[in-house]
Amino acid sequence: MQIGRVIGSVVATRKHPSHEGLKLLLVQPLNLDGTDRGDAVVAVDALDAGVGDRVLLTNEGFCAGSSVGRWPATPIDAAVLGVIEEIELLPDVRGQR
Amino acid sequence: MQIGRVIGSVVATRKHPSHEGLKLLLVQPLNLDGTDRGDAVVAVDALDAGVGDRVLLTNEGFCAGSSVGRWPATPIDAAVLGVIEEIELLPDVRGQR
Amino acid sequence: MQIGRVIGSVVATRKHPSHEGLKLLLVQPLNLDGTDRGDAVVAVDALDAGVGDRVLLTNEGFCAGSSVGRWPATPIDAAVLGVIEEIELLPDVRGQR
Amino acid sequence: MQIGRVIGSVVATRKHPSHEGLKLLLVQPLNLDGTDRGDAVVAVDALDAGVGDRVLLTNEGFCAGSSVGRWPATPIDAAVLGVIEEIELLPDVRGQR
Amino acid sequence: MQIGRVIGSVVATRKHPSHEGLKLLLVQPLNLDGTDRGDAVVAVDALDAGVGDRVLLTNEGFCAGSSVGRWPATPIDAAVLGVIEEIELLPDVRGQR
Repeated sequence: MQIGRVIGSVVATRKHPSHEGLKLLLVQPLNLDGTDRGDAVVAVDALDAGVGDRVLLTNEGFCAGSSVGRWPATPIDAAVLGVIEEIELLPDVRGQR
Repeated sequence: MQIGRVIGSVVATRKHPSHEGLKLLLVQPLNLDGTDRGDAVVAVDALDAGVGDRVLLTNEGFCAGSSVGRWPATPIDAAVLGVIEEIELLPDVRGQR
Repeated sequence: MQIGRVIGSVVATRKHPSHEGLKLLLVQPLNLDGTDRGDAVVAVDALDAGVGDRVLLTNEGFCAGSSVGRWPATPIDAAVLGVIEEIELLPDVRGQR
Repeated sequence: MQIGRVIGSVVATRKHPSHEGLKLLLVQPLNLDGTDRGDAVVAVDALDAGVGDRVLLTNEGFCAGSSVGRWPATPIDAAVLGVIEEIELLPDVRGQR
Repeated sequence: MQIGRVIGSVVATRKHPSHEGLKLLLVQPLNLDGTDRGDAVVAVDALDAGVGDRVLLTNEGFCAGSSVGRWPATPIDAAVLGVIEEIELLPDVRGQR
């Protein structure tokens, strides 16, 4: 999984029937030092995360599809799986936290 | 998922039998600022999107395969899952919309 | 899926038992302007494509594995799914065809 | 799989129910010469690895999901599958070990 | 799949129980001209390939997992599927062989 930050949301009017009721978040993947890691992805919100939250992001379809309990009928390839509270780094590997 | 723009279509005469009746779209993945994100992909149209539409794109096989209700017998690795109406960005993260 | 060009073939003498009888093609993925998109991949021929053909290529394992009707017992991660006859591009997005 | 080094851990308070009891490690993928290979990923600990260990890492969802015996109901896309004791390199290909 | 060269092996003492008895090879993916294609990966040996062999490599989890007949219980994301004897290239596309 990756660390990411929720930076917005996406609204689709016409959509795949199985997406009805799912909330789509814009999530910016982050490097350990907090800088952007590529561009933002559109991820399904699997636990009611809020804009601004630092989250645990999966950007892989098999994994994401199983996160909302609708597998395999719902096409999803990215999901927010947790709200990260703390990142602990080995001191002698990387000094920053 | 990614944000993309439908920029064309592809016609295959000889094709995998399970692809019969599927419409193949050319979709250009986009960054949040609207610039191109890599090159275009060939995606199955899962909801009758039109050329020029801004769409929700999956580019992952497990996800795409389930989008047309023919899983797992139909080989598909990209699909258009929604037509995007609005993208809402956290103001203090990225100013543009 | 991607657009590709069949540029050769690969012969393996010792091979996975389930690969017996499968034809392995070398396929060069292409950008929309016809230039190379990364390096060539080895793909299973799911419809008797010929060297030189412009084809519909999948480079994803779940998708490719289902293309030869031997899923999930045959390990395959790339396959040729169609021979492309025509690519239609939105005129005001990209002028070339 | 890739070679990686455990460099820390991640704590998520609000999380996917199926993640209850799983330990999340920060793993830095490594090149053969020991340099960093991209940025760190968040991986599930499938065998009680410790911070500082050199490990066998999978960063693919289908594979990782099956590593903790909760497949397919638990969304996971990266896992630590082994602690590496020795890497043996063909002498005339690469001299370093 | 990709073309690769077996350049070594990896030994893990503590490992996922399902990996017992599997041989882990270090495989360097290759471009068509024989140069390195990214860094080496750790792949399961599905057919007793030897160090130095030019092989057919899959680096995708669903595919690799099915190669050793232990699907879906064994987490694997890369495997050697064949020993390549001959690569035939279209003469007017690429002259080298």
